[in-house]
Amino acid sequence: MTQQQRIVLAGRPQGDPGPEHFRLETAPLPDPGAGEFAVRIIWLSLDPYMRGRMDAGASYVDPVEVGAPMAGGAVGQVTASNNARFAVGDVVMGYFGWVSAAISDGTGVRKLDPSVAPISTALGVLGMPGLTAWAGLTRVAEAQPGETVVISAATGAVGSVAGQLAKARGMTVIGVAGGAEKCAYAVDTLGFDACLDHRAAPDARALSSAIKEAAPQGIDVYFENVGGKTLQAVIPRMNQGGRIAVCGMIAWYSGVAEGSAAPLPFVWRSILVKRLRVQGFIVTDYQQDTGAFVKEAAPMLADGRIQYRETVAEGLENAPAAFLDMLKGGNFGKQLVRVGPDPD
Amino acid sequence: MTQQQRIVLAGRPQGDPGPEHFRLETAPLPDPGAGEFAVRIIWLSLDPYMRGRMDAGASYVDPVEVGAPMAGGAVGQVTASNNARFAVGDVVMGYFGWVSAAISDGTGVRKLDPSVAPISTALGVLGMPGLTAWAGLTRVAEAQPGETVVISAATGAVGSVAGQLAKARGMTVIGVAGGAEKCAYAVDTLGFDACLDHRAAPDARALSSAIKEAAPQGIDVYFENVGGKTLQAVIPRMNQGGRIAVCGMIAWYSGVAEGSAAPLPFVWRSILVKRLRVQGFIVTDYQQDTGAFVKEAAPMLADGRIQYRETVAEGLENAPAAFLDMLKGGNFGKQLVRVGPDPD
Repeated sequence: MTQQQRIVLAGRPQGDPGPEHFRLETAPLPDPGAGEFAVRIIWLSLDPYMRGRMDAGASYVDPVEVGAPMAGGAVGQVTASNNARFAVGDVVMGYFGWVSAAISDGTGVRKLDPSVAPISTALGVLGMPGLTAWAGLTRVAEAQPGETVVISAATGAVGSVAGQLAKARGMTVIGVAGGAEKCAYAVDTLGFDACLDHRAAPDARALSSAIKEAAPQGIDVYFENVGGKTLQAVIPRMNQGGRIAVCGMIAWYSGVAEGSAAPLPFVWRSILVKRLRVQGFIVTDYQQDTGAFVKEAAPMLADGRIQYRETVAEGLENAPAAFLDMLKGGNFGKQLVRVGPDPD
Repeated sequence: MTQQQRIVLAGRPQGDPGPEHFRLETAPLPDPGAGEFAVRIIWLSLDPYMRGRMDAGASYVDPVEVGAPMAGGAVGQVTASNNARFAVGDVVMGYFGWVSAAISDGTGVRKLDPSVAPISTALGVLGMPGLTAWAGLTRVAEAQPGETVVISAATGAVGSVAGQLAKARGMTVIGVAGGAEKCAYAVDTLGFDACLDHRAAPDARALSSAIKEAAPQGIDVYFENVGGKTLQAVIPRMNQGGRIAVCGMIAWYSGVAEGSAAPLPFVWRSILVKRLRVQGFIVTDYQQDTGAFVKEAAPMLADGRIQYRETVAEGLENAPAAFLDMLKGGNFGKQLVRVGPDPD
């Protein structure tokens, strides 16, 4: 019997979450039963959607119960197995949660081939965030060569892949990110045509002017990851017939102060007058596209056409702080937690 | 030479328009030149979109110039002609404006057959409002049999046709209208399954509860004609994968008081979580569907499956008052102005 470290939800936040909403626990983990296997976790993924799971009530996934481990995707190695599909030593990806070790019956777990790409990419560029980027661009926005796309959270796990896929498809790509360093990375390493620092813009109007300067031809597609000021800045720059793929609203996940958002009529009049199409989407609706996505992205990753960057927090106990920092944009690229050593 | 009466835009409104923004003028009308014909107007159409044309700046149509006649569709009879396509006595529909008589070269003018349907229907149920209803339901919302649709401004020129087409396609149809009389008409005459009086609901929350009661299965399609309180009430009732066809926002055409609208994040989170598709549309983008629309709607009009109702103001000089009243929901069905006697 091994010990399981786990981060549980200690309480539901009202507004911004803090360290008090998480608790580290240690408890014995039973041995795997019939058809089960044990896995030790190597990499834990931290993603903005987890903020929604801390709230009670309707979201697109069930809330995490107070006292239960936080949910999340992770990569680990099988340490004991009574399941014919998974052998000791296999490297696997699954939704094991914020834990150091887990017992699984194999539901939703897939084996990784470490020779294809670094195993952490199964949580980022070749995983759920990558598929999100692909589906949003392809299925939701129906992005076309020659069009101009704005991507918010441009250097994040989703935005960085979306932008590089868009460049490869012959689009003009404008990023929006927080800080000069991220913007330089978006242009110099990711190959975006331009990237605007929303922190350098005092308000939505100033950011909107900067977008107009970077894309005088207007915006055909907005890949929306953040909401807030960036959304308000992009709306007036949208071209007739434009599409807004609503992937995330990290700026609003913890609510918003009264009066700090643009008035609703302004947005809806734009939707009407410009015949915009605004569509929300969730990556789980596009699982059937995983093959098409990996077929397009894996060779681009192998030959360097897709670059990626990871921010790593060391140790499961530091997952809450890293998560809270990520919600404020403190990460640079995909946010991971190193939970255990590399595969044997 | 005849005299032309015309209503011109006297000034641009800030907020709600009033009688002071219109002026009646009388001036001589020249005889038709080569290739032209003269028409005396019988019916003038009043439509909410005209409010947008009173404003300067970008809308989906050019603004009416101050001092120029208000634009609008009308039905009339040819009184003199140098155009081979149009003979004296022909009944025609065209965008002649708020005038008693006009000279035309035939651009955008089509002949009507008075034996098919009353000629005023070319401005309503079989005209632009009818096509708007058809395109919004068919092309934008992609409404399916068995689904539930909410239609605001339910007894208006667009809403009444949208609802009856939806019923004929096997949908559950919930109307929202202003006042008990309109709601009774929507159910008893138009055949809606239910109709809610937004004036009886003190706020969006109360209206939302009423919608929930009328459609416990949730809303798949919202045909949006009004914005404002009704939009805020419908959003929480939308089902996952729902579509909102944004046709009009009459509640917001003259702006909105600060703080009177729902906060933006609430709406965008719903779009994301429920994977809603929100799409603005303008009927002029769907002219190519006129044939399909008339083929479906004309037999329904002939055999009584489509009912319609008109509110008639008498005399061109009363067009401004009727228009202002319509913007506040004072009309019941299609708003027309009787400008001249029936065809000879």
